[in-house]
Amino acid sequence: MDTFELHKRNTGMLSIVPTAKIETREDLTLVYTPEVGKICMAIKDNPELLSAYTIAGKTVAVISNGTAVLGFGNIGPKAALPVMEGKAVIFKEFAGIDAYPICISETDTEKFIAIVKSIALNFAGINLEDIAAPACFEIEQRLSDELPIPVIHDDQHGTAIVTLAALFGALTVTKKERINVAISGAGAAGVAIMNLLLAARDDGLLPLNELRVFDSKGLVALERTDLTGIKQDIATKTKQAKALTFAAGIEGMDVFIGVSAPGILTVDHVRSMNAQPIVFALANPVPEILPDLALQAGAAIVATGRSDFPNQINNALVYPGLFKGLLENNIKKVEMHHKLVVAKAITAYQPAMVTATNLLPSILDKNIPLLIAKMLREVSS
Amino acid sequence: MDTFELHKRNTGMLSIVPTAKIETREDLTLVYTPEVGKICMAIKDNPELLSAYTIAGKTVAVISNGTAVLGFGNIGPKAALPVMEGKAVIFKEFAGIDAYPICISETDTEKFIAIVKSIALNFAGINLEDIAAPACFEIEQRLSDELPIPVIHDDQHGTAIVTLAALFGALTVTKKERINVAISGAGAAGVAIMNLLLAARDDGLLPLNELRVFDSKGLVALERTDLTGIKQDIATKTKQAKALTFAAGIEGMDVFIGVSAPGILTVDHVRSMNAQPIVFALANPVPEILPDLALQAGAAIVATGRSDFPNQINNALVYPGLFKGLLENNIKKVEMHHKLVVAKAITAYQPAMVTATNLLPSILDKNIPLLIAKMLREVSS
Repeated sequence: MDTFELHKRNTGMLSIVPTAKIETREDLTLVYTPEVGKICMAIKDNPELLSAYTIAGKTVAVISNGTAVLGFGNIGPKAALPVMEGKAVIFKEFAGIDAYPICISETDTEKFIAIVKSIALNFAGINLEDIAAPACFEIEQRLSDELPIPVIHDDQHGTAIVTLAALFGALTVTKKERINVAISGAGAAGVAIMNLLLAARDDGLLPLNELRVFDSKGLVALERTDLTGIKQDIATKTKQAKALTFAAGIEGMDVFIGVSAPGILTVDHVRSMNAQPIVFALANPVPEILPDLALQAGAAIVATGRSDFPNQINNALVYPGLFKGLLENNIKKVEMHHKLVVAKAITAYQPAMVTATNLLPSILDKNIPLLIAKMLREVSS
Repeated sequence: MDTFELHKRNTGMLSIVPTAKIETREDLTLVYTPEVGKICMAIKDNPELLSAYTIAGKTVAVISNGTAVLGFGNIGPKAALPVMEGKAVIFKEFAGIDAYPICISETDTEKFIAIVKSIALNFAGINLEDIAAPACFEIEQRLSDELPIPVIHDDQHGTAIVTLAALFGALTVTKKERINVAISGAGAAGVAIMNLLLAARDDGLLPLNELRVFDSKGLVALERTDLTGIKQDIATKTKQAKALTFAAGIEGMDVFIGVSAPGILTVDHVRSMNAQPIVFALANPVPEILPDLALQAGAAIVATGRSDFPNQINNALVYPGLFKGLLENNIKKVEMHHKLVVAKAITAYQPAMVTATNLLPSILDKNIPLLIAKMLREVSS
């Protein structure tokens, strides 16, 4: 079956079904008037009961405005809906979580935040998706601060977490003990990866020596006069003072993490890296370098975002378990240590199975969400 | 099982399930990246395809802000959610329609309209619910005019349609050939009932002689100086010039339709009505007069909104079939003639079964939505 046929067959990928049958008049009165009025008044008197007696206690909203969909960019909220449906399917299939997609026709940051806040009461958590940088940073921060439920922009943190887990695997394989890392891309994913790698270093989990973040103009460094506030912050956090071209800056790196654009990384670049280079070329659908080329140039390990090459780095390995853990353990705000635990959980699952072409467990393995939720329980109790 | 246990058992009354299983990596790529990208780009190039390939083509939103919930008034959007879930259950059980509840924390009319418009793309139709008058009139009108999908405020039109269907039955039983009708209540339901009765008269469906609408101050009549714009409109449409108390105004009426408050109609009022009075006391949960009292006072027919008395007048008989008909027949805007057809469909179902205590078919009869949809097809093609 092709994807068009599959999506058309039942008009989209989701169906809404009652959790109880209505066969008698009594069934009807329990679900609807007059008996449902008792639930309404109980919630009015004690709003905390909302999560016990309604779907607001279990449902994750998958919310987008369609400004940065997959690798397509700003294709709008209608064209984004199929991706959100797909995420909701994965939530249910892999973690048993009810998730509902809501695409919002609004690109203004303040208005978008207000709309999400006005409908947040219906949900136990919010997965923001495919929202362009830099708006995504403020949207996530504000919603996370102002709502009493967990809010995560998956393009940032899901990607960062699964990348860190893959990097843990790559270090085991290559036995590297001190790494210089280059991140290509200073958007939503690049910034989140930077922050998570620095936090992992500070926690003693990652032997990170130097970290360099590149945008389309080269190394993000304090010397540059064209930096936005976010990029100044990147330069400060990575302690990069002096501007460099990408070609100069990639020299002597151990790890390349690309969340940028097709073809950024050449064979010569890979050859200029330290011995046994690790290449994560995550641009979708066309990576920063094709795996064959990277291997030819001497890469010890190559990963992409694609399912048709070995080592797919995809946040579908993260978000079902992450939300399962958040909901089950009543975690209302996602902190850095939660993200590190999720990466550790993925790494801890089957360490003996890790090889150069098998850095990560299978996305299809339903034990992963269970283990992530379990390890989140241990740090949250 | 009590209603609390039922609502708690599965955390609310709805569950979201995928329409396809994910068992292989290929399944995953069809539902999610990279194949889903083809659906996204097809919709970007032709937004009309949204309704073929996503849940936006089949799902009805049940939307409220909780300002007029059941008989409880403004209890807020959280306390309203159980009612919206119940409606979604009924949509699926009786008409096979996927419906999803969204309660919105916003009481400002303009902002509420903007929020609904920003999320409307996810839905094939909108059922507005439990929104207080007079805001409900503008909200429904504006959304209906400005959105390309059908929008109905069910408290107005569902109630009006089922009331008209019950009145058709009552006229058959009592053989009345010319009726004076009193409506008690000039809110959302009262205005919609007035408009539908007048339209039925103009269409030759209802032998309506005089129509009087009462609010808490008596007859809504042009002579009064306290009328809002909506009430001036009521007085004009019903051609009522001279103010009257309710006690004076109910004299000589054939039909009482109460969408107001408990205890409004006394035994003496019923006795002052014409022979064989028809009493629809629809205030919930406590009606304008209890059925026993009305019958004692000589009422030929009594109906209420309750399931524990004969003749329950409940809009659950209307909205599943109405939306089924709208969606199946691609009706983008609900007009008066659609509403009349739905009332006629209910009346046409089993005319031989109609008696003084059985004015309407059973809410549980799943043939009703089928018949309503069929009769809507006939007028829309």
